[in-house]
Amino acid sequence: MSEGAEFSMLGIDVHSHVVPASFPRSVRSNVRSWPTMEPHDCDHRNIVIDGKAYRTLSDRCWRTEKRLEDMASMQIGLQVISPMPELFSYWLAAEDAAELLRYVNDQVALMAQEAKGRIVAFGAVPLQDMDLALRELERLHYELAFSGVEIGSNINGRSLGDPELEPFFQAAADFGMAVFVHAVRPTGMERIHGPRPLEQVLGYPTDVGLAVASIVCANTMVKFPGLRMAFSHGGGTFASLLPRFAEGFRCFSVVRDQLQLCPEEQARKLFFDTLVYDTSTLRHLAAEFGESQLLIGSDYPFNFHERKPVDKVREAFGGDLCTAQAVASRNAIRFLDLKDMTQ
Amino acid sequence: MSEGAEFSMLGIDVHSHVVPASFPRSVRSNVRSWPTMEPHDCDHRNIVIDGKAYRTLSDRCWRTEKRLEDMASMQIGLQVISPMPELFSYWLAAEDAAELLRYVNDQVALMAQEAKGRIVAFGAVPLQDMDLALRELERLHYELAFSGVEIGSNINGRSLGDPELEPFFQAAADFGMAVFVHAVRPTGMERIHGPRPLEQVLGYPTDVGLAVASIVCANTMVKFPGLRMAFSHGGGTFASLLPRFAEGFRCFSVVRDQLQLCPEEQARKLFFDTLVYDTSTLRHLAAEFGESQLLIGSDYPFNFHERKPVDKVREAFGGDLCTAQAVASRNAIRFLDLKDMTQ
Repeated sequence: MSEGAEFSMLGIDVHSHVVPASFPRSVRSNVRSWPTMEPHDCDHRNIVIDGKAYRTLSDRCWRTEKRLEDMASMQIGLQVISPMPELFSYWLAAEDAAELLRYVNDQVALMAQEAKGRIVAFGAVPLQDMDLALRELERLHYELAFSGVEIGSNINGRSLGDPELEPFFQAAADFGMAVFVHAVRPTGMERIHGPRPLEQVLGYPTDVGLAVASIVCANTMVKFPGLRMAFSHGGGTFASLLPRFAEGFRCFSVVRDQLQLCPEEQARKLFFDTLVYDTSTLRHLAAEFGESQLLIGSDYPFNFHERKPVDKVREAFGGDLCTAQAVASRNAIRFLDLKDMTQ
Repeated sequence: MSEGAEFSMLGIDVHSHVVPASFPRSVRSNVRSWPTMEPHDCDHRNIVIDGKAYRTLSDRCWRTEKRLEDMASMQIGLQVISPMPELFSYWLAAEDAAELLRYVNDQVALMAQEAKGRIVAFGAVPLQDMDLALRELERLHYELAFSGVEIGSNINGRSLGDPELEPFFQAAADFGMAVFVHAVRPTGMERIHGPRPLEQVLGYPTDVGLAVASIVCANTMVKFPGLRMAFSHGGGTFASLLPRFAEGFRCFSVVRDQLQLCPEEQARKLFFDTLVYDTSTLRHLAAEFGESQLLIGSDYPFNFHERKPVDKVREAFGGDLCTAQAVASRNAIRFLDLKDMTQ
């Protein structure tokens, strides 16, 4: 492989978000926390939830042609799009959430159609109600042909290892749909005094780290060996938890009784995105989880996103072209099960 | 420095614990959560709290001569001892906690006396009541000549960055007493389904990571520049939080408004112990926090402790003798302000 080949490397970004340009009214009137969109400036709108501007959004959240341009400048050949996590709507009445998510998922499908093969669609399902969640998952699979589904790092505070969520993981495995776990409404924020973005900055990785730990404690990857599951933000704090978890497994017989496979081996059955903003940390993730388990994630197009995700991979692993290419795209081909992909 | 010098390196362990051999009755009758000790076998006792055996304890928790023998086999020349965190008693009525901690601190002082210079004493103070906490801190400083004080990663859920705790940090800085932050009663445990030791395994590092973040958000090291402060368990999850925290500081003006100094520079004013059970993680901590900020910590003599703390440092930094010696002892001499120490 020549030097030139390295510099033409195109990545697959598994972590980018979509917000529809507008929201229809709910079929019921006065649904609490139902989002609306308000004008901001020519390129931006405000999403309003519970009467408050939750976030100012770039039109890149819904305009496919701008997204495709940006992908080119970010050296991203293929992008997975999934709903902005605040749209999970786990906190709405389940029927309302199901209605909202059907609309959001349909918008995601339209964007993927417009992109003619350069965008892969992940949907979201109302996991506060397993029947409705499975019904929407079936629709994503059979009607919309989605490759995967995005879920929160907790479901209204319910941890991902809760046995009540097993039917969802079973169905995702049966459908061959990839699962992308994204931070939402994190725990532990009572420990931090500061402005609201610290929830994203510090709470998100904390909640994701605990979500990975919860999945390991529940032996999810042992129970559903066909499942493909990735975690946002580099698995959050899990890289810091894992060595102590491994030692705790060796030290405490009750922990060994609970886990059907040691934490290190379970971790290496999961995927983690590269969204850690630091090449030294990226190399550390490769050491802890295996370089075969890392996938590019950017959080595009939010303000707080990684502008140069492929460059970061090249900086971290550039000396080892094979690893750099695995992290940039080959691992994602496995995660997404893109059997016919020739990159 | 010859090869031989490396192998004779003795470390300073800043993280080891003490439990008294027994507890007197409280001056008040029926104090809830007041500990008692019950026999277990010839070398062990059970500490009973709220009618339940909280932990089976080795007599190494209170027998100084055994501790000194073990220090020799662990290549530890000097050990900091501090109370078992469950003895912080932040959840007791403040007067009861003050009474219990006076007794515990006196037992810590006796062990340090018996060790003739090979043990450094850290006490604990009832931080649920600032007046009583400052009174005990004064006693630790003026009467018992303690070098430092151990505090929880939260005080009954109150984060360490809470402005109400500032008088404590001011007093510790004024007295020149080192502060060692240890995990206790962690947040986020609702995210994990599993046996009780997972609180130590996963909850402790999570809570410590948020405690470091809280101290950074509160600009504690900027406000009290003379303070010397160390965190247990390698700073817990903070190594995973820091790069995202640094990027969040660059991205969000409200975060920049809150922090008087960027997170990376604040982190490098703090100390972190080496208790991470993994040499790769240890090198990562050195990269994130600076090799000058790491101190040996073992959690001796609990079951879940690092048996070979100096070997771990040698494995991680052995190629760089200067760094290995800094981490093994020189940084601790700065943390403890041992001005006359010649190692």
